[in-house]
Amino acid sequence: MEFKNFVSLEDTLELSKKFKFSSRNRNVPILNSIGHYSFSDIYSPDDFPSFSKSAVDGFAIFSNSTISSTRTNPSYFKIIGESSPEKDFDGNVKEGEAVKIYTGGKMPEGTDAVVMMEDTEELNKDLKVFVPVRKFQNVSLRGEDIKKGFKIIGKGERITPPHLVAFIEVGIKNIEVYDLSVGIISTGNEIVSGKVKNSTQPFLAEFLRWNGFEPTILGSVKDDEASIKNIIESSNNDIIIITGGTGPSDKDVLSNFLENNAVKIFHGIKIRPARTTGLYIYNEKPIFIVSGLPVASLIAMENVFLPIVSQWTGIKRQRKFYERGILARSLVNTLGFRSFVRVKLDRTVDPPLVYPIRVTGSGVIYSILEADGILEMGENTEGMMEGENVMVQILRW
Amino acid sequence: MEFKNFVSLEDTLELSKKFKFSSRNRNVPILNSIGHYSFSDIYSPDDFPSFSKSAVDGFAIFSNSTISSTRTNPSYFKIIGESSPEKDFDGNVKEGEAVKIYTGGKMPEGTDAVVMMEDTEELNKDLKVFVPVRKFQNVSLRGEDIKKGFKIIGKGERITPPHLVAFIEVGIKNIEVYDLSVGIISTGNEIVSGKVKNSTQPFLAEFLRWNGFEPTILGSVKDDEASIKNIIESSNNDIIIITGGTGPSDKDVLSNFLENNAVKIFHGIKIRPARTTGLYIYNEKPIFIVSGLPVASLIAMENVFLPIVSQWTGIKRQRKFYERGILARSLVNTLGFRSFVRVKLDRTVDPPLVYPIRVTGSGVIYSILEADGILEMGENTEGMMEGENVMVQILRW
Repeated sequence: MEFKNFVSLEDTLELSKKFKFSSRNRNVPILNSIGHYSFSDIYSPDDFPSFSKSAVDGFAIFSNSTISSTRTNPSYFKIIGESSPEKDFDGNVKEGEAVKIYTGGKMPEGTDAVVMMEDTEELNKDLKVFVPVRKFQNVSLRGEDIKKGFKIIGKGERITPPHLVAFIEVGIKNIEVYDLSVGIISTGNEIVSGKVKNSTQPFLAEFLRWNGFEPTILGSVKDDEASIKNIIESSNNDIIIITGGTGPSDKDVLSNFLENNAVKIFHGIKIRPARTTGLYIYNEKPIFIVSGLPVASLIAMENVFLPIVSQWTGIKRQRKFYERGILARSLVNTLGFRSFVRVKLDRTVDPPLVYPIRVTGSGVIYSILEADGILEMGENTEGMMEGENVMVQILRW
Repeated sequence: MEFKNFVSLEDTLELSKKFKFSSRNRNVPILNSIGHYSFSDIYSPDDFPSFSKSAVDGFAIFSNSTISSTRTNPSYFKIIGESSPEKDFDGNVKEGEAVKIYTGGKMPEGTDAVVMMEDTEELNKDLKVFVPVRKFQNVSLRGEDIKKGFKIIGKGERITPPHLVAFIEVGIKNIEVYDLSVGIISTGNEIVSGKVKNSTQPFLAEFLRWNGFEPTILGSVKDDEASIKNIIESSNNDIIIITGGTGPSDKDVLSNFLENNAVKIFHGIKIRPARTTGLYIYNEKPIFIVSGLPVASLIAMENVFLPIVSQWTGIKRQRKFYERGILARSLVNTLGFRSFVRVKLDRTVDPPLVYPIRVTGSGVIYSILEADGILEMGENTEGMMEGENVMVQILRW
């Protein structure tokens, strides 16, 4: 792969606009929707609460009748029934009448306020009210919480437990979610033979699941064009990720096959690690080429795959969290590349100390296990100095 | 419930130490372990890499023979074989001999460094090396990434996709995880009759799942002692959550039953919302009493349930993220209570503006849907002033 064809990370989003992705969707019961992305704007079909109800235990009355009530000069009411969450009071209440009401009980016709239990005295069916109450006092009005037409969730937003509450309360039972099916293929004779362990494929599957996608592990194929062609064509996933082999000849077979049979969007990005990341379109299907090394695959997924797929589909990515700290050791950048440095934070001091994790060629596990976050150095940065105040993106597992 | 028996939030952790919880565990394949909590410290059973290997494509040689190599005065080697990730070179390499090696190929016996392809010239079986290489140059040494005995994950830590990589690479196939089984019961005649929708129970189930627990929805029971006793005793969950009814008489039936038949740890906390949160021990089983209102139940789960269960079990909670901002509207606290105010952040300005979400008695959906975070006001705080610089805990759905 030649360096001169490498593109900037910034350009990958623009380049990927050449392809129009058609998102699929499916209908799921709301209880199975958590973690998925809503396929449409969802509006409340009704007011919530759907009727006005009492916010306290007390008596529902017509507020005007209490205007001049005091402890020494109470107003008097006749108690004509009860309203509770379990049973409404169905009749009509006239001035001078009251209905005993419990928290959540429906406001009876003819009443417009609730006087709290402790501000009254009840004797058989006679009620004394010792305080004035104003209109709607202690009442939760119909639609006060959610008005009919309120947007509960927007298209592309991720569905979380609070949305479930809203769906249930306003009576939504099923919703459309994105069906984000991704097939993962590993290439490499050394992977197929089992000589080299394949941790990247299950890692990518779990990474995708963690992000609300539906991964399918499609297995491993040898480095020959026929095998690669066959596995791509037999998959029915909407997106395919192929992890390159780590052996000598692998990359060429896969690259050559795609160069000759697919539309290249880009292959090679000015980032470290993950510079071998690529994107092709084969038979109208996007194929992402991702490193077979776990660390590089993580950087590729976070910074290439997710941004591009979000742009294509409209799904909203989770908020990133940043923390400032003091760099504990100077860093040298490879000029022309954006570097993603895995760092560990010492939070026993304030501001935290940011330690770059020393990696060697094979530092595939240690750096991914120990990292608290990622520190970026731009393409044109020569490096960062010990003592510099830096911004770290915290990995939010 | 009388205010004088309310305890401070700070005291709930200390009080709950009266109970000794026995955590259960189960063995799962590593692929099913993501999101669970490791039940033990797990150490690497082996070095990784398990053998020294090349970090580049080139030739494995004995470094001493290259000391004085230059372009004009190269050192000469005989190529006697190949080593690749697919196939090792099994023989022994003598001085003056070289083995062609590919990235990831095992270092042959007798070699200690790799000279990169571009620094050599290969003609048939003869090799010229134009540069000196030092001992271990371009070699990933055995155990360089992970040493045998390195702690991959600690007891109580949550298992994430990166751990999966480590487990696979060092050959761990199954691990012990916490079996955190929680049964959720709703009480309230109005819930049982369906007159009031029960969104809190599924919300709690999904909240628990999101946090790595295994919830069981045990349904709803009427507000009578026999029903409550029966459902508690027939559950085989290790922890039970009972959401109190929202109706008038409910709380008393449940409270009375527990007061008379269980050991009270606390019932009533000086927090708003969620002040009715309680903890009892019934037949050696912890029973948490949680509000039937979704917002209050969320506050209770985050600030009472999770901290106490973490203390009992040793599971580590996820890192909380905070953001500073400027309070956009003054807040008054209810003295004697720690308040958890749901806030929305306007991040179009820097620092962000923090808007408390206006809630009324029934603001159960809106405030939970719209909140970006939670702002705490301590028990002894009278309030917070507009313009104050405040710290907001961001809800990390």
